[in-house]
Amino acid sequence: MQGGKHVSARRITLDDVRPLARGCAILGTGGGGDVSTSTLAAERALKDYGDVPLVTLDELPRDGLVLPLGSIGAPTVSQEMLMSGREPRLIREAAERDQGRPAVAVMASEIGGGNGVEPVAWAATLGLPLLDADGMGRAFPEVQMVSMYVAGLPAGTVVLADVQDNLTLIRPVDGLWSEQLARAVCVASGATALMADYIHTPAELAGAVIEGSVSRALAIGRAVSDTQDPIGALVRTLGAATLITGKIIELERHTGGGFVRGSVVVDGVGECRGRMLRVEIQNENLVALENGVVRASVPDLITLVDAQTAEAVSTESLGYGQRVTVLAWPCAPLWRTPAGLRTAGPAAFGYDIPYIPVEEAAHANV
Amino acid sequence: MQGGKHVSARRITLDDVRPLARGCAILGTGGGGDVSTSTLAAERALKDYGDVPLVTLDELPRDGLVLPLGSIGAPTVSQEMLMSGREPRLIREAAERDQGRPAVAVMASEIGGGNGVEPVAWAATLGLPLLDADGMGRAFPEVQMVSMYVAGLPAGTVVLADVQDNLTLIRPVDGLWSEQLARAVCVASGATALMADYIHTPAELAGAVIEGSVSRALAIGRAVSDTQDPIGALVRTLGAATLITGKIIELERHTGGGFVRGSVVVDGVGECRGRMLRVEIQNENLVALENGVVRASVPDLITLVDAQTAEAVSTESLGYGQRVTVLAWPCAPLWRTPAGLRTAGPAAFGYDIPYIPVEEAAHANV
Repeated sequence: MQGGKHVSARRITLDDVRPLARGCAILGTGGGGDVSTSTLAAERALKDYGDVPLVTLDELPRDGLVLPLGSIGAPTVSQEMLMSGREPRLIREAAERDQGRPAVAVMASEIGGGNGVEPVAWAATLGLPLLDADGMGRAFPEVQMVSMYVAGLPAGTVVLADVQDNLTLIRPVDGLWSEQLARAVCVASGATALMADYIHTPAELAGAVIEGSVSRALAIGRAVSDTQDPIGALVRTLGAATLITGKIIELERHTGGGFVRGSVVVDGVGECRGRMLRVEIQNENLVALENGVVRASVPDLITLVDAQTAEAVSTESLGYGQRVTVLAWPCAPLWRTPAGLRTAGPAAFGYDIPYIPVEEAAHANV
Repeated sequence: MQGGKHVSARRITLDDVRPLARGCAILGTGGGGDVSTSTLAAERALKDYGDVPLVTLDELPRDGLVLPLGSIGAPTVSQEMLMSGREPRLIREAAERDQGRPAVAVMASEIGGGNGVEPVAWAATLGLPLLDADGMGRAFPEVQMVSMYVAGLPAGTVVLADVQDNLTLIRPVDGLWSEQLARAVCVASGATALMADYIHTPAELAGAVIEGSVSRALAIGRAVSDTQDPIGALVRTLGAATLITGKIIELERHTGGGFVRGSVVVDGVGECRGRMLRVEIQNENLVALENGVVRASVPDLITLVDAQTAEAVSTESLGYGQRVTVLAWPCAPLWRTPAGLRTAGPAAFGYDIPYIPVEEAAHANV
């Protein structure tokens, strides 16, 4: 996709926001925050501040700071509690002062969901370019589940700002403490905050981020927009397996400790009649099971989409009786390394199951 | 007391630690952390690093930083979970870097309990003098309950370090957010951490701290050590009212959210036979009630002492059947101002009762 027509534009404009949002929602695997408020925020910021340059690592000054930004918190809360708009400036000032270098770009910590769209607004507000990369290639629920952690970069100073203007800087001894302390601050702030972590120079981030993520999200969003067969276009663009098409007959979600957890059961229709698929959730879709057999699991991507429109259905917008298609496709190669699987494989979420790549698991006998 | 024989020494030496600890325990009103581990830490640090100068605000360089230090957390945890010893250096480095000025002294955030004794160790470790002042004149359970907050100083950057070497800097919008965020970090760190807040210059702290606190704690500790009648000596030194002498017949404590809460009932003996006093607790002793009538309340000081030795009995060392005398005496004048009472009067702890100064309440008809 990297050389394609749609991704050659090197600026994010108003026309890009809705396709970007569709793509980010699909890469969100149910989480990463709702894209609708992020879409409005990105559109407003582009109107107010102009287009945002989309850059690669090697286009940036090598000794400036990239700010990997993302909302942290349970998505059902951040959907209701909007940001003040001052958070990116508070974080930028604190990071520049902490490190004694200027910020040169914004990066999405996670490309999935609203957290992939809102960096357009943050970059526009700050007058900075947006890096065509992210730390996940998808969405994950915990802050240490980023490529920079897997690549062994230090978290450095983690900076959080909340809607009340409280600013917190954490220098954790490792990524797990980063998660524990940042999550506690986020919950105390009312369960949502804007966070920057792994604030490093472009030189330091080389090889430790997932490059091309913004272009990829745009390409996915455009593929499903310009077609009579959105599901087919999506499957081809993602290289995805279709796990099931059916309707939601069971749905369980509860919010606590900064997370949404639960599960959803899809009962097959049409060609899938007589089959049932269960998807387990912690902010994102983690594992898809059929008759107790794993059909796909983290770190591979599992997304529920509307069976007609191929719009992603997020964890918080799941509804009883909804007709959905469940797709699963391979994660970025970094997540399949031993360090990647330790960080975000099934065991990292408490599942006592081996990781089987989706290319194999999706076609296993059940 | 200020000109007395015992307080004229301008250095804290090994001989001062145990009297200081006795005095701090009495000023702790049940909280501020156990003094026994703090005593050992202070003695070891004085042996390793030498005596600690005890200074007043006007003896310090006017543009350096005073580090008000204290442990935050539930005392029953900090008694079991020792510090690493690296916390003061982590905090000093972060504060100096954050503010671009050198630290010139350590101050006890609260003189009460172990938090009044351990600053001797922190000052010795850092090679800094100890300021003869604190932020409470006693102990209080919440971090905004300090004289600097009452005096209207900004909290500035709050710095926390934990036993794992995690460092957190919080720039809260006000003292209440400071409490909420610092408490969350403390709980995530395992319910205890070392904290510095209201890091200001001596010039800024003038009029906003309670001066002479260390000298006062030393004087109290010496008064009860050098006598055949420790209770009498203590009552005279404190200017205290004796609320009751009796034995503990009811005791209830539970730990949660970073606090110990509960109550204790003392059944009168001797001259007090037939009377009962109930003391309510949130880390510290908050309110003393007799037949539903308030005999003393925050911000005035209420301490249970051993009926024979006059040793303070802390919240975590209360025991069923213990013989105790309950003393109450006036707080520092700052706490009786409208801002002081809003911050740490009965209503600040959820009590719907008016504040009546202990001089009056202790002698009310019950």
